[in-house]
Amino acid sequence: MSGHLAIVGLGPGDPRYLTPEADAALAAAQSLYGYGPYLDRLQSRSGQSRCASDNREEGARAAAALREAAAGASVAIVSGGDPGVFAMASAVCEEIEAGPETWRGLDVIVVPGVTAMLAVAAKIGAPLGHDFCALSLSDNLKPWELIERRLDAAAGAGFVIALYNPVSRLRPWQFGAAIDRLRRHLPASTPVIFGRAVGRSDEHIDVVTLDRAGVTAADMATLVIVGSPATRVIRRSGRSPLVYTPRAAAEVSL
Amino acid sequence: MSGHLAIVGLGPGDPRYLTPEADAALAAAQSLYGYGPYLDRLQSRSGQSRCASDNREEGARAAAALREAAAGASVAIVSGGDPGVFAMASAVCEEIEAGPETWRGLDVIVVPGVTAMLAVAAKIGAPLGHDFCALSLSDNLKPWELIERRLDAAAGAGFVIALYNPVSRLRPWQFGAAIDRLRRHLPASTPVIFGRAVGRSDEHIDVVTLDRAGVTAADMATLVIVGSPATRVIRRSGRSPLVYTPRAAAEVSL
Repeated sequence: MSGHLAIVGLGPGDPRYLTPEADAALAAAQSLYGYGPYLDRLQSRSGQSRCASDNREEGARAAAALREAAAGASVAIVSGGDPGVFAMASAVCEEIEAGPETWRGLDVIVVPGVTAMLAVAAKIGAPLGHDFCALSLSDNLKPWELIERRLDAAAGAGFVIALYNPVSRLRPWQFGAAIDRLRRHLPASTPVIFGRAVGRSDEHIDVVTLDRAGVTAADMATLVIVGSPATRVIRRSGRSPLVYTPRAAAEVSL
Repeated sequence: MSGHLAIVGLGPGDPRYLTPEADAALAAAQSLYGYGPYLDRLQSRSGQSRCASDNREEGARAAAALREAAAGASVAIVSGGDPGVFAMASAVCEEIEAGPETWRGLDVIVVPGVTAMLAVAAKIGAPLGHDFCALSLSDNLKPWELIERRLDAAAGAGFVIALYNPVSRLRPWQFGAAIDRLRRHLPASTPVIFGRAVGRSDEHIDVVTLDRAGVTAADMATLVIVGSPATRVIRRSGRSPLVYTPRAAAEVSL
């Protein structure tokens, strides 16, 4: 089996986040698969084909790439951020497990990247500096009740919470409901960070408090970080604030 | 205030993970501060000084770097992985908040990197493909009872769990105790991944089941990922297994 499949993390939307390993994997590929806007970020290379698909078609995209690799090609699938965080690496594994035995013989590698929560955190200080979790707010693939249970567990135990996929056109109310849920556990003054399009020309970062977070604009390109009761804001004259979570735990009632 | 401080993530221990942004920040620095083994990874640049310190001296290192930046220098502090995840970015913010007002006027940037859990996950498939959390097992800066409470909350709610700092010379029993605690919530067959020195020449990855994880060797260079009840293992003849967590939630009793 000579085919090869690389699942490549591009990092946030700027080449300065692309690792040398990812760049080499892209250069070695005969075919690139991915969500159109991610492919559009990449330079053209002669002799390299591209297959763009929509962002709700991960399974079909993974299967198409596996078929081409199984035919002997060197194929890369691209993900924004890290391919292992709410992205293409799981979709490929799902297809391998469900697919023909020959797909298990393929050389498959995952090339990690800077995932959105790390990029947003870096822009504002160190909000993920203590224990944290990453939770997708999309209820396309899990029941809303499970999301609520996880929000309760994470906030109740003092984790900082990174919310992926907070809002989409077809999921208009979930983000507000999640913020309402978190208010049961966290003080109104808890810092909440909205990082939109980090690493792109239209990048925008907002810091608000939890009591005002439900009405702050978020969209599909936004990553939200909700602090813990220990998260702090350093005001700076003439500069944006620093938001961070200290390395030592605050006093927590057990 | 002309000084400048960059807190730079090197990624796991190989230049192929170093982003162009991190490389540029290192090249622009007059002085580098960091844990000795991290500084040793970097090429020498003429005219650039180095100040190595031990891995228990983060606060003192941050303060020394801030003092030099406040005197007008361009300074970089390096972290393995990502500086915002159990690393130097929080230590610097702590010193800024506690330090002289002039430190708040400094230009401080954080350059994100590929943190260990992403690198380990990429080596084995996609274990972080669904909701997950990152938890440091060091009880130097928080009570052990709080760590137990967070393990209970995370495992009970179906998060995959990445364990940073599982073991050190001065913390010999905590990792075994954490695995025992997780057994209260998770099946004996839950996959547990040990990633040691990922990205270095002595890299080693092991996958065991939770009932055998307590006796598996771990050290300061190990990152452990404990699956959720949904995490799956794909056996492959002649290749290492793929471990992944599907994008869709498994049935969970609420």
